[in-house]
Amino acid sequence: MRAVDLITKTQHKEPLSKEEIQYLISSYVKGDVPDYQVAAWLMAVYFNGLTKEETFFLTDAMLNSGDTIDLSMIDGIKVDKHSTGGVGDKTSLVLGPLAAACGCKVAKLSGRGLGHTGGTLDKLESIPGVTISLTLDRFIKQVKDIGVAIAGQTANLVPADKLLYALRDVTSTVESLPLIASSIMSKKLASGTDVICIDVKYGSGAFMKTIKDAENLSHAMISLAKLANKKVVCFISEMNNPLGKTIGNRLEVKEAVDCLKGKGPKDLEELCLRVCGYMCYFSGITKTQEEGYSFAKEKLYDGSAYKKFLELIKAQGALDVDFDNFIEVDEVLSIKSKEEEYIEHIDALTLGLVSMRLGAGRERKEDPVDFNVGIELTHIPGDKVKVGDELLKIYRNKKWDDRIIDDIYSAYSFSKEKIEPIPVISEIIE
Amino acid sequence: MRAVDLITKTQHKEPLSKEEIQYLISSYVKGDVPDYQVAAWLMAVYFNGLTKEETFFLTDAMLNSGDTIDLSMIDGIKVDKHSTGGVGDKTSLVLGPLAAACGCKVAKLSGRGLGHTGGTLDKLESIPGVTISLTLDRFIKQVKDIGVAIAGQTANLVPADKLLYALRDVTSTVESLPLIASSIMSKKLASGTDVICIDVKYGSGAFMKTIKDAENLSHAMISLAKLANKKVVCFISEMNNPLGKTIGNRLEVKEAVDCLKGKGPKDLEELCLRVCGYMCYFSGITKTQEEGYSFAKEKLYDGSAYKKFLELIKAQGALDVDFDNFIEVDEVLSIKSKEEEYIEHIDALTLGLVSMRLGAGRERKEDPVDFNVGIELTHIPGDKVKVGDELLKIYRNKKWDDRIIDDIYSAYSFSKEKIEPIPVISEIIE
Repeated sequence: MRAVDLITKTQHKEPLSKEEIQYLISSYVKGDVPDYQVAAWLMAVYFNGLTKEETFFLTDAMLNSGDTIDLSMIDGIKVDKHSTGGVGDKTSLVLGPLAAACGCKVAKLSGRGLGHTGGTLDKLESIPGVTISLTLDRFIKQVKDIGVAIAGQTANLVPADKLLYALRDVTSTVESLPLIASSIMSKKLASGTDVICIDVKYGSGAFMKTIKDAENLSHAMISLAKLANKKVVCFISEMNNPLGKTIGNRLEVKEAVDCLKGKGPKDLEELCLRVCGYMCYFSGITKTQEEGYSFAKEKLYDGSAYKKFLELIKAQGALDVDFDNFIEVDEVLSIKSKEEEYIEHIDALTLGLVSMRLGAGRERKEDPVDFNVGIELTHIPGDKVKVGDELLKIYRNKKWDDRIIDDIYSAYSFSKEKIEPIPVISEIIE
Repeated sequence: MRAVDLITKTQHKEPLSKEEIQYLISSYVKGDVPDYQVAAWLMAVYFNGLTKEETFFLTDAMLNSGDTIDLSMIDGIKVDKHSTGGVGDKTSLVLGPLAAACGCKVAKLSGRGLGHTGGTLDKLESIPGVTISLTLDRFIKQVKDIGVAIAGQTANLVPADKLLYALRDVTSTVESLPLIASSIMSKKLASGTDVICIDVKYGSGAFMKTIKDAENLSHAMISLAKLANKKVVCFISEMNNPLGKTIGNRLEVKEAVDCLKGKGPKDLEELCLRVCGYMCYFSGITKTQEEGYSFAKEKLYDGSAYKKFLELIKAQGALDVDFDNFIEVDEVLSIKSKEEEYIEHIDALTLGLVSMRLGAGRERKEDPVDFNVGIELTHIPGDKVKVGDELLKIYRNKKWDDRIIDDIYSAYSFSKEKIEPIPVISEIIE
């Protein structure tokens, strides 16, 4: 078999066989097929796509490129939640303990933030003492003991994805549906849970720019899950505006804590309850997802979810933390409105990039992160503001660039008419 | 400037600027942009093409990646001839001396054969004593002294093309019009002649499979030449059937010698006279290309062209050669017809590959070549054969595979009806 012939086939839309895709991926991981041939193949995939079957073969080949996690020592149904990435997305910090408080077994492997998007691992590590480096034994024991663990990947999971993702990043082939679907699903299948709830975000701050793209990705991932005998539910959620009111690691932890105390922003709370409702249903804890939703709401408002959160971070090494005095920065800047109108839209991508430039995120993988800096929205879309009202607060340390102020103003659009809020979840596909 | 952003632009059909293409190519040659990014870019070009302007910028960037040849020490108009590659194509061996016999200054840099196509350098080197390694000074002096030199490339001409071609070969991006046009034209422009006659072949044995593709390539090359203030004329010629009656290095030299003595196959003679007519016209030797054609015919039939050929090979080191006893093989096999019909078509690609497998050509660049082996057609398309009549002779040494016989039969198609011969040149574009 020659890699060049496989490239030619994809170039001419002739489907590759399971053996051919297996050969390409395993030879690439071994170093027998060079980067430049895989780069050419990825670009051919970008233009011509892959069939459903080819996408499954690719997912399977990636999955088989490394270890897989066996969670069979944990009794019952194991659930996981994944987000395709967004701005201000602290869902896992709320949903993990909330679902565990409902009795679900939440075994979650998370990632770090890159570019304008944040990552759950950074947020967790911003809590003094918390580690995300759990051995597999400790990870499993924690899920058995308290129902939830959120860790970084330690085992040699899906090495093909690491290689392919790095190559896609520098060859402009990230935005390809079968490549995105196989990348996500190979990792989720390797991490061994039975039910995977995927928050598929669309909008300026997400990888999928339109609802249609998010739907297509959802259908692709659901097909892959079916072929692998796993259950995937996709929640199509809006990411033109940031989720909640904060962007930045500790600011988001604080907001998650508020939400776990029943005092969080409504969009975040609603998203967590809806997903948790499905998790309860698929775990057999409630008879329907609607019952699951009510059950989750009960656990949120009776303090169980917050208690579980404290258990979770303590199990992962947290020191005593006063979340009310948690954020330490040189300066908090107040940005005031120049308009007297309704806020129509606050651009997630723009604020995600501003937050990154403040130091809350990484431009490159190796960049350090400042846990304290970020943005806190005083008003959200739908609110009416007057001239001089505060739009948001900037929490900043040294890193500063005067153009940030202009960029923040450019993120806002206003309307004379009252704005109907966009529902956080527009569709659930399973 | 980042290579990944340039890939993204081409992916989205946003034209690259001169500076961007210059950056991509020069950084690639320096090793600052890696193979895998260029491979992804080439595949994006394969799918989206390049604009006329971008193709010129690419040609120019490739041209500027190395040395260029200055032929100004040779008085008058310097002409060159290039073929896009075919089977049995010995045109340069006839045309070079023929045009020089007419008074043209022929400064020709040639290439080697690869795959099913032959190369002029191999054919020249099959003549005992002949070298194709001329220094630039010797090359220029020879053109001044006798009007013709045919050499391999010695200077550091267009290193970008060598790198890009090798990469295209292994990433399935050879068949892209702007990449083919810029590859040919960068080399032709670097070699410093004023007028370039390009034999653009179409058909099974050529890179361009259809007349339309050959026309498109011709127009692209003519545009590039105009932007560089050079003259290009394209001769669209048929390559579904081999050119002439022989395939294989010494067999083709012998056929070229016959042609130079006025005893060659009609298709080869016609092609050489037509191109030579244009060369005479553009060199100012005749007033029209038609007059050039007649003048060339005169020089072919009065023995001047053959005399010039002997001068040429002597200047490049030839020993005394008896062309009538030139080919030495272990065995000459006669392949007989099983049909009583008109020969409609003899597939050039099939016979080119057979010839390569006999040892006359190279599968890989580093393979050795056996100068003596090859194929000689006894009958050509349009001829009527009876059962048992000889179709062709195979000249073979050790290398042999019984399936060759079947492959040869598969190259033939027959017809009950008389066949009109296809004209060797279907169109001339300038």
